[in-house]
Amino acid sequence: MQLGFIGFGEAAFSISCGLKEQGIGAIVAYDPMWDHPTYGAQVQGRAETAQVELMKTPEEVLQRANVLIVAVPADKALGVSETLKPHLKAGDLYIDVSAASPKVKKAIWETIEETGAALVDAAMVGALLVDKHKVPILASGSGTDRFIELMYPFGMNITKVSEIPGDASAIKLIRSIFMKGFAALGIELLEAAHHFNVEELVISGIGDSLDGKSFEWSLNRMVTGTAIHAQRRIVELEGSIEMLQESDLNSVMSEAVKEKLKRVASHNLKEKFQGVIPGSWLEVIEAMKH
Amino acid sequence: MQLGFIGFGEAAFSISCGLKEQGIGAIVAYDPMWDHPTYGAQVQGRAETAQVELMKTPEEVLQRANVLIVAVPADKALGVSETLKPHLKAGDLYIDVSAASPKVKKAIWETIEETGAALVDAAMVGALLVDKHKVPILASGSGTDRFIELMYPFGMNITKVSEIPGDASAIKLIRSIFMKGFAALGIELLEAAHHFNVEELVISGIGDSLDGKSFEWSLNRMVTGTAIHAQRRIVELEGSIEMLQESDLNSVMSEAVKEKLKRVASHNLKEKFQGVIPGSWLEVIEAMKH
Repeated sequence: MQLGFIGFGEAAFSISCGLKEQGIGAIVAYDPMWDHPTYGAQVQGRAETAQVELMKTPEEVLQRANVLIVAVPADKALGVSETLKPHLKAGDLYIDVSAASPKVKKAIWETIEETGAALVDAAMVGALLVDKHKVPILASGSGTDRFIELMYPFGMNITKVSEIPGDASAIKLIRSIFMKGFAALGIELLEAAHHFNVEELVISGIGDSLDGKSFEWSLNRMVTGTAIHAQRRIVELEGSIEMLQESDLNSVMSEAVKEKLKRVASHNLKEKFQGVIPGSWLEVIEAMKH
Repeated sequence: MQLGFIGFGEAAFSISCGLKEQGIGAIVAYDPMWDHPTYGAQVQGRAETAQVELMKTPEEVLQRANVLIVAVPADKALGVSETLKPHLKAGDLYIDVSAASPKVKKAIWETIEETGAALVDAAMVGALLVDKHKVPILASGSGTDRFIELMYPFGMNITKVSEIPGDASAIKLIRSIFMKGFAALGIELLEAAHHFNVEELVISGIGDSLDGKSFEWSLNRMVTGTAIHAQRRIVELEGSIEMLQESDLNSVMSEAVKEKLKRVASHNLKEKFQGVIPGSWLEVIEAMKH
């Protein structure tokens, strides 16, 4: 294996530092800013620190490397694959670690497929600066098994999702909705609870409902219950929103929850399920498609 | 104790049926619909089933009863207290079980305070039709201890929150934001995960982050982390929102999360905390006040 980076920003720098410590050997890299009057010094400084050899063109990286980690901004990822395509060889491994969408990752695969290179859609799901090359990575696409096999000796933490480019990025982006949403809901909750000086009882009350149950169990219970009771919960939420507004508290999350429940209610799920809470969230999501 | 209901809808009917089974003795009730051409028959039928004696005016209920459960729609609760005020006696117990806001519950207290009656702000937090009189109730206000003492023998499930009217309703309405929000976020999550056929990995991934931790611990971790990293998370969320939109999936929750994080970011918390994640959510909420 000869490893090369396209894009030598924070991500590539962190990973290559970690891999070097594990004794990976020579690494080459190209960054379009390598000779930039302002930013060039930073790129060159990082390369020196990581003991990575900077190339002047992406072609040079591809002449040397057969395992390519493409670490560019999400909106550049597709264009870069088009630029690199003429220089890719059969058997090359193209690992896109950008935060691009599943659609873009699929488009990258369609771009490079005929070169005979294998693609890895790699989605980093941890703290890169802390974990460096050990950052948890979800991976999908035709090159995933080889990526894991090659990088396992150097301590990389890669979980295979599927053979389909886009799946890894979809999981990352979807999970992110819930985790960031939990935080945003939590902030709206705590702003209100603190205002009314009832934070302890609010937190312990929710804890009584959630603690000791798995996320999957709670998710299923809440989604299936909401399917049947959406209309009533919209009315109840109006009380909560009114309370926030009376107290000059921000209510952007609560209003979105109301909108979402209205959308659920518009599917008449109570009738579809004849008033009986369905057994699984899947029935709810399927019923909302029609 | 002589118990009376003002408003004899579903809530009063469920509670009185349960209390009757526990042998509470005579109950009187007034409902403005008692002789309504259309709805009168239902009110009278319910009263008969529950063995509750219907009165023709609220005054008659107050002549007979010294413990009053006021079970009227939230938007009627304050007006009803003004109507009842002239007939209240010192020592009466006025239990408002409506879904009115803390502000309204406080206004009810201000209305009836000088009569010498004691108030209970009672917030029902369970499934009334299933639990009947045993529905979990949060209670606050001057009459709370007496309410618990009187009703404990009949199996009512009342938790004292404080002596302040409005506290019980605030807890119910605030908790409700989070629980309904969890469901709404869950639906947005599952719609996307199902579309991309990655539901198992998404659910198990979030489970890895949440399962086995208390709600309080997770809440604290996510809120304090968001305080420092709001700006970066906004950019990441844009990727998620773009993905939903590309796939024609509803994104109302994700967009609200982005708005909420923008609001957090506008407080420059990263600077205020000098880049170090604070120890407690309270520091975050306090810092967002200024």
